[in-house]
Amino acid sequence: MNMTNHHKVIIIGAGISGLKAANLLINEHNITDIKIFEARDRYGGRLVSSEPGYHNQNYDLGASWHHDILINSMFQEERKTPYRPYVIEDDNFAIVDYDSEERLDQCKKLNIMPVYNELTTFLKLNYFGNLNNSLSLRDAVIMYINKMGDTLTKDQKVTLLSLSRYTELWNGDSWNLISAEDCVGDHFGRNALVNNFGLYPNKYLDQNNLKDKVVLNTAVTSIDVIKNGSKKMATLTTGNNEVYTADYVICSIPLSLLKKSSENCKQLGSIKFNPPLSHSFTSALSKISFGSLGKFFFEFDSIKWSTDQSRAIQMSKNFTKTIELLDDLNLNGNFLTTADLKSITSETDEPKEYKCDDYPYFVLNLASSFKIPTILFLTQYPLTEYLEKLSKQQLYEFFKPALINSLKKIFKCDKTLKYSPDHDEKVSDDEIHLKNIIHTSWTSDPLALGAYTSIRVHDSFDTFLEESMKGHEDIVRFVGEAYVSEGNGCVWGAEKTAEREVKNIIELEMTKEVNSLKI
Amino acid sequence: MNMTNHHKVIIIGAGISGLKAANLLINEHNITDIKIFEARDRYGGRLVSSEPGYHNQNYDLGASWHHDILINSMFQEERKTPYRPYVIEDDNFAIVDYDSEERLDQCKKLNIMPVYNELTTFLKLNYFGNLNNSLSLRDAVIMYINKMGDTLTKDQKVTLLSLSRYTELWNGDSWNLISAEDCVGDHFGRNALVNNFGLYPNKYLDQNNLKDKVVLNTAVTSIDVIKNGSKKMATLTTGNNEVYTADYVICSIPLSLLKKSSENCKQLGSIKFNPPLSHSFTSALSKISFGSLGKFFFEFDSIKWSTDQSRAIQMSKNFTKTIELLDDLNLNGNFLTTADLKSITSETDEPKEYKCDDYPYFVLNLASSFKIPTILFLTQYPLTEYLEKLSKQQLYEFFKPALINSLKKIFKCDKTLKYSPDHDEKVSDDEIHLKNIIHTSWTSDPLALGAYTSIRVHDSFDTFLEESMKGHEDIVRFVGEAYVSEGNGCVWGAEKTAEREVKNIIELEMTKEVNSLKI
Ligand SMILES: Cc1cc2nc3c(=O)[nH]c(=O)nc-3n(C[C@H](O)[C@H](O)[C@H](O)COP(=O)(O)OP(=O)(O)OC[C@H]3O[C@@H](n4cnc5c(N)ncnc54)[C@H](O)[C@@H]3O)c2cc1C
Ligand SMILES: Cc1cc2nc3c(=O)[nH]c(=O)nc-3n(C[C@H](O)[C@H](O)[C@H](O)COP(=O)(O)OP(=O)(O)OC[C@H]3O[C@@H](n4cnc5c(N)ncnc54)[C@H](O)[C@@H]3O)c2cc1C
Repeated sequence: MNMTNHHKVIIIGAGISGLKAANLLINEHNITDIKIFEARDRYGGRLVSSEPGYHNQNYDLGASWHHDILINSMFQEERKTPYRPYVIEDDNFAIVDYDSEERLDQCKKLNIMPVYNELTTFLKLNYFGNLNNSLSLRDAVIMYINKMGDTLTKDQKVTLLSLSRYTELWNGDSWNLISAEDCVGDHFGRNALVNNFGLYPNKYLDQNNLKDKVVLNTAVTSIDVIKNGSKKMATLTTGNNEVYTADYVICSIPLSLLKKSSENCKQLGSIKFNPPLSHSFTSALSKISFGSLGKFFFEFDSIKWSTDQSRAIQMSKNFTKTIELLDDLNLNGNFLTTADLKSITSETDEPKEYKCDDYPYFVLNLASSFKIPTILFLTQYPLTEYLEKLSKQQLYEFFKPALINSLKKIFKCDKTLKYSPDHDEKVSDDEIHLKNIIHTSWTSDPLALGAYTSIRVHDSFDTFLEESMKGHEDIVRFVGEAYVSEGNGCVWGAEKTAEREVKNIIELEMTKEVNSLKI
Repeated sequence: MNMTNHHKVIIIGAGISGLKAANLLINEHNITDIKIFEARDRYGGRLVSSEPGYHNQNYDLGASWHHDILINSMFQEERKTPYRPYVIEDDNFAIVDYDSEERLDQCKKLNIMPVYNELTTFLKLNYFGNLNNSLSLRDAVIMYINKMGDTLTKDQKVTLLSLSRYTELWNGDSWNLISAEDCVGDHFGRNALVNNFGLYPNKYLDQNNLKDKVVLNTAVTSIDVIKNGSKKMATLTTGNNEVYTADYVICSIPLSLLKKSSENCKQLGSIKFNPPLSHSFTSALSKISFGSLGKFFFEFDSIKWSTDQSRAIQMSKNFTKTIELLDDLNLNGNFLTTADLKSITSETDEPKEYKCDDYPYFVLNLASSFKIPTILFLTQYPLTEYLEKLSKQQLYEFFKPALINSLKKIFKCDKTLKYSPDHDEKVSDDEIHLKNIIHTSWTSDPLALGAYTSIRVHDSFDTFLEESMKGHEDIVRFVGEAYVSEGNGCVWGAEKTAEREVKNIIELEMTKEVNSLKI
């Protein structure tokens, strides 16, 4: 064996969890014999900024918020000496639909917020910890509406059904897929929007000449764990057929790729494990899902709208029909069977065709946060997949109804919308010109295959977490956003797994030393 | 023994828990040999409507809401066939102080609500279940402000400190007394305001000729439990020295009176137990408190204000000084010691003199809920105690600043306020006349001594609950708002204890029968 190809620890992936792990190994434990393989031609993984856009602005295509700042350990560090500046806004979000002229959150007569809060409590009470995972968010909301029916007006019922889909934009997944048990996360504090979060990985890359340890454009394709007496060692093969060995492996490939790996799919980024992943882990991997949050940045000629409101929900067209069908069942709050549910939800099932007003969007006013003339739309599975393949012209056509509606009702801008990608086109006073669209393409990116973990009906997050935390053959450890409960799907969650697994490796190493002393 | 003075079950108190217990014994278990002693000359206890006021309207001096309607078992019954009509409003409450012209909840720049929600989460995370009971609400709020200092503006800090006192009006108790661990209850759903909740006890009184079983104006003064072999029996003495015996006693005297009883205070309503209450129960009773919510109904000549807003918080004058002292300590988020806390909170300690703007009020617009020209102010300990002794003229003088401020800023009424109790006084167009004030007097009422349970610093609700649920000598069972966790302090909680203790008695009775069969 060529010993220059041996390393104490090999890290797969130079995303935030891989970089954090390297940083901790070096800074806290003085373990410098490390190598990082990164399949892409860049660092940072799902923490990345876009190329400069129309106004020479970079946008965060992956993470952009510190979430849950009250318990977010990474944010506690950032606060002391911020590597990247942030703003904490979190004003109450505006809510608009297509039918009403008024903002629904401000409509006295509708009085929707107390009802929405009650729904949230209902979901938590019924699903947190105590019962099954077989209800989708959509079905659980219908059960709430059925249960509290006589205390709700028809308008409240109709609005609530659409409004509950807001959660789709947290999970990046469809309300008839996500599990009602898990989707309505508690929020632990406000959120801080980071300016160019994509630069954050440099915090670690700029220390310890870490870049020198990273090999870009190099995917690991297989991991063989070999036993040598009681000692285990890993042999890794890369895409260009080089072979490396290591005492420990920290594997940070996204959950989506680990799922592919366990299904023996041969695609860029997936890894062949030998011995294969345990049966229980493989089975746990089949009970966890991956969502597809998408981001669409609409760059305008200049800020021609109100900066009062930083966040909003543009609701989908409403589900009056579903509510009418429910009312027709005349259950008076009595139990709704699966058959009942089926009979009334057919119209809310996935459409054959993608239409703008079939989906809710989370809308961000970057003019309010960072004085940039850009409005950001967040999208969810399955829509994201469809949209990420379209041309800019097609995207404009698709989003037009929602853009016009949002500009008018949320941002108080009545100007005529025009798409004019041409730099020099003249803009008259009563017009607002969309100049460019920048967007994500995580769903078609083989090294992401979506955005982050989502828990769907019949999934079991707890089982998955338990199995994945065991690692593979002890010496292969998994890090990343998926492998943690608090901070799941988030940058800070990913960093926490790096801390945990580095600690695990140090403990394994200490046990090994004690054992070798005994012998 | 005169057997006509013997009853299967004697119930002490014809409040809602006593009446509910009687109703269940009769309807569910066919136990009709019941007697109820009630010290007052009326039924209902703390569920009572006032005498008709200026507009011939009765106001609820005790309970007026079904709280937490999502889990409120009594409300689930009421919904089906309401005995008393209700409205569910729960609009977002308006927040005003004395300094700002604007409503603080609508002030974009202040953006207080996300911060207030974060504080609530902080209190729950730090105190629910996992740590000590030695911090008051006030001190815990200061700890939050210290911890999150750099993410808050000075205006947010100052507002937050005052706004957190809103909780005083749920507990009827002062923020420097109530325990931070317990005071920020989760809210399980919306609240339904009942029209004349005081009539609700009739629901039970009108069944089974229940009134015939109630002896009004008769306080029980002592309970002796005598053992006869393995059988126990209770002997009760009343204020007029009559003696009754019973197999079981359901004791519904308010917690305040049970505390007095355990301290051997001889006062109306307190009971001498022989044998005395167990040492552990007596000690548990010393670790639970009783708050003093007060209600002040201001009756005006007619509705001359906006009915848009049904609920509001009139904040106290602000604590700028406290925040400045905290900032001077320059802790940068580091731990705040008890000494630090003391040094900055002296100015917020109880004043020698009672002044209107030293206290927050929860303000209810009965014009919006029930079209009555009345505004209701809720007050808390210790202020309630002071106010309940004042004359109407004095009350008017006291509340004037808050009334004027609320009328103007919450209810958009700029008319000149005048107190004119005289029925015939002419009211000019630019005036609004206060005609009458109706208010509670629970603090000076020996049979209440306050409003309902409150959990203070160093109290231990769990211990108290555990001890009280054991009953006294098995056959004396305690019912009422105090003896339950979910629904504590509430009518529906009181009803739940009646269900529980009737069930306990039935079980004791069954065991007795089985035992006697054995012998
Ligand atoms: C649209 C979007 C919005 C988001 N918003 C937020 C947010 O606001 N706040 C927040 O906290 N989080 C957010 N997230 C999540 C956050 O970006 C991720 O949780 C985090 O960046 C994941 O880091 P990671 O190290 O686990 O994975 P990654 O960043 O995916 O790193 C894994 C790395 O492994 C590489 N790799 C894969 N396979 C191989 C292989 N076989 N060999 C070598 N290298 C390989 C990949 O190229 C990648 O660089 C968002 C994510 C998306 C997609
Ligand atoms: C100002 C105020 C506002 C409130 N608001 C609400 C609300 O909005 N919603 C809600 O759910 N709850 C509310 N409550 C609480 C609710 O009113 C009580 O929880 C409930 O009425 C208590 O019923 P009880 O049977 O436990 O006690 P009580 O109603 O106090 O009944 C005890 C009875 O025992 C009698 N008694 C006492 N000593 C003796 C004796 N020695 N011998 C014989 N009889 C005796 C008393 O006279 C009384 O009638 C409020 C209470 C107050 C004071």
